[in-house]
Amino acid sequence: MKADIITIGDEILIGQITDTNSQWIAEKINLSAYEIRQITTVGDNKEQIKNCLDNVIPNTDLVIITGGLGPTEDDITKETLADYFGMKLVLNYDVLSDVQSFVNSKGFKMNELNQKQAEVPEHCKILRNKNGTAPGMWFEKEQTIIISLPAVPFEMKEILKNCVLPELQVLNKDKESKIVHKTVLVYGYPESELAELLSDWESKLYNKIKLAYLPSPERIRLRLSIICDSEEKALSIIEDEVNKLKKILGYHIFGYGDTFMQNVIGELLVNREKTLSVAESCTSGNIARLITSVPGSSMYFKGGIVAYSNEIKNKMLNVSESTLQSYGAVSEEVVKEMAVGQRNLFKTDYAVAVSGIAGPGGGTIDKPVGTTWIAIADTYGVSAFKFNFGNRRELNVRFASTKALDLLRLRILSRS
Amino acid sequence: MKADIITIGDEILIGQITDTNSQWIAEKINLSAYEIRQITTVGDNKEQIKNCLDNVIPNTDLVIITGGLGPTEDDITKETLADYFGMKLVLNYDVLSDVQSFVNSKGFKMNELNQKQAEVPEHCKILRNKNGTAPGMWFEKEQTIIISLPAVPFEMKEILKNCVLPELQVLNKDKESKIVHKTVLVYGYPESELAELLSDWESKLYNKIKLAYLPSPERIRLRLSIICDSEEKALSIIEDEVNKLKKILGYHIFGYGDTFMQNVIGELLVNREKTLSVAESCTSGNIARLITSVPGSSMYFKGGIVAYSNEIKNKMLNVSESTLQSYGAVSEEVVKEMAVGQRNLFKTDYAVAVSGIAGPGGGTIDKPVGTTWIAIADTYGVSAFKFNFGNRRELNVRFASTKALDLLRLRILSRS
Repeated sequence: MKADIITIGDEILIGQITDTNSQWIAEKINLSAYEIRQITTVGDNKEQIKNCLDNVIPNTDLVIITGGLGPTEDDITKETLADYFGMKLVLNYDVLSDVQSFVNSKGFKMNELNQKQAEVPEHCKILRNKNGTAPGMWFEKEQTIIISLPAVPFEMKEILKNCVLPELQVLNKDKESKIVHKTVLVYGYPESELAELLSDWESKLYNKIKLAYLPSPERIRLRLSIICDSEEKALSIIEDEVNKLKKILGYHIFGYGDTFMQNVIGELLVNREKTLSVAESCTSGNIARLITSVPGSSMYFKGGIVAYSNEIKNKMLNVSESTLQSYGAVSEEVVKEMAVGQRNLFKTDYAVAVSGIAGPGGGTIDKPVGTTWIAIADTYGVSAFKFNFGNRRELNVRFASTKALDLLRLRILSRS
Repeated sequence: MKADIITIGDEILIGQITDTNSQWIAEKINLSAYEIRQITTVGDNKEQIKNCLDNVIPNTDLVIITGGLGPTEDDITKETLADYFGMKLVLNYDVLSDVQSFVNSKGFKMNELNQKQAEVPEHCKILRNKNGTAPGMWFEKEQTIIISLPAVPFEMKEILKNCVLPELQVLNKDKESKIVHKTVLVYGYPESELAELLSDWESKLYNKIKLAYLPSPERIRLRLSIICDSEEKALSIIEDEVNKLKKILGYHIFGYGDTFMQNVIGELLVNREKTLSVAESCTSGNIARLITSVPGSSMYFKGGIVAYSNEIKNKMLNVSESTLQSYGAVSEEVVKEMAVGQRNLFKTDYAVAVSGIAGPGGGTIDKPVGTTWIAIADTYGVSAFKFNFGNRRELNVRFASTKALDLLRLRILSRS
């Protein structure tokens, strides 16, 4: 089956924002056994939207539209779709109640614009939105399903996951081909090195399996997918391949599916009833933020010190002034004292410390921008590791944070 | 004048990568007085590419194509374009010399695949590529210019900047229309409320100005753009409207262009030579992370305490046990003691403290998930404010962090 994505928004056409929704949708829809035929971005313009629909609908089975559903005048997708499908806009009381709840939860009052969000094309199926005021809408025309979703990513994602994908699954349950997939989460190799390491395995991979590398600073997702008639058989084929991967990659596989390093660490600490705190200089709270992105992290995470200045490293973490002066803040000696100081101060089983030069300023010949020391302290002592994460400030922080979490993960695993 | 962008690549359609080239091209082309009509992504498929060109060329003045120019078999853009325009592929010696230089510079040898990169459609204009093996190509058909560029961002950008934009400028030098933009950054209103507040102004807006609302949890960008023959005149028209906006929105305008709250705070603190620290519970390092995303933030930011547990609030920030017991961690009393304790501990001019229930657990009837207290302490004392940011953990943290920064901004402004 074929699917099209249409993104509506002047802000994309003038280059003000990158359309990241389409990638997310493409990946999800792809896993529901649709091949994406085309992605089209058009402006908030009635005629353009209609022309685009005219071009797309006869050539595809499913159209996912995002954008143009806000309450303001420049957003015209809903009116355009109503017009295109020859429907009137009518007030929908379910949607009105959703909008009211949402608006109230934010402490705001209903106004005319919000009320207008509850007017929907009369014969479309409503996909309710708990996270915003614009409902999703499901239309059908000439055997093609056309779905309109808001462009705000978390609203769009929730509606797609909760209302669209399950419904598509039901509709397509009699069609023979199913896509079965498993994602292996790998950390610690650049993509090209991983590809080289896996080239032999890849060349012998069961020929119906499609392999995709999905790299980001936090993890490389290796997605194995297979289209087949028997789900059971497909799962067993994929499991065989994953077992081979385990032998090649060992501890570099940190999980499966869609989890992150911080979730894996959470499980390890909960299972072992251990606690954690962090002392952050260049990552400045980012590791703490990642750790607490896991619901329930208060069970094992006590908090930490953001020690951005040397004064705070000394005063709070007990890093000695002479160490700071002799070796500089970005050094093995300082980061070890930070980790030990943090562990003592917060009385946790594990402490992580990071000190680095995030850039753009602050680099020297000996310690160029990107130089980063990470230390892990536990009851057995403290170890430190040196890295260079390059010269882009934001990426640097992301790389350093994930590496610190991975070192912690390996430390926990090595002691149990 | 109108322009279209076509991106060619299977990897985008399966959701493997985000197409960031289109945003960059859109912005650049837009500033050359082209309005982008549509962005289309198609696969590495001859028929699809031809269909797309058939649909696009009659409706636009300029087409920028990226992708599908690599040396491997899946890349078919060049052959498809030659075929589409009825041209043969011929060896071009200028390109061959470029390819040879490039390959040599990397320490590799020429092979058959590289040699093939120097074959180009016979009557197209070549746009030479110093950074890779695929040249850009310039075609014309029915008054429309069609330009094909490699998808590697660095190669594409260099060719566009050096060969395409200057050429377009020469071609269009007699055409008078220019696009001028200004973006006003607003915080503190939901989009619908802002739209209501501005409806009167909007209805009287100079009729050639296009207005767009671009909302995110961190800010609403109000983009005013105008196409006109004189840049000077356009700027003055936009400036008039911005002045009217200033009267309506006052301090809710926190900046212009593409800045963020943390950058504005950085400037305020640097100008006043003041220092800052933060005490974070539910935001757990996120405010510290935002503040230090600004290069040079070490000039005013000393760091902070991530006080995720009550024990740490008490031990580090000196929040009294009786306050914690009487009022609970998420309360006016506790957040004020956190801010004052933080300010004393780190000896900073300003301290921000946040305590809230990020969810999904931990809510009660009196204090539902999302309840958040924020306090700002300075030399004049401490103030606290209560909010509810809803029940989604991650968003909650983003909303709370930006609100805390905004309260700090207003506090700094109110004292100077």
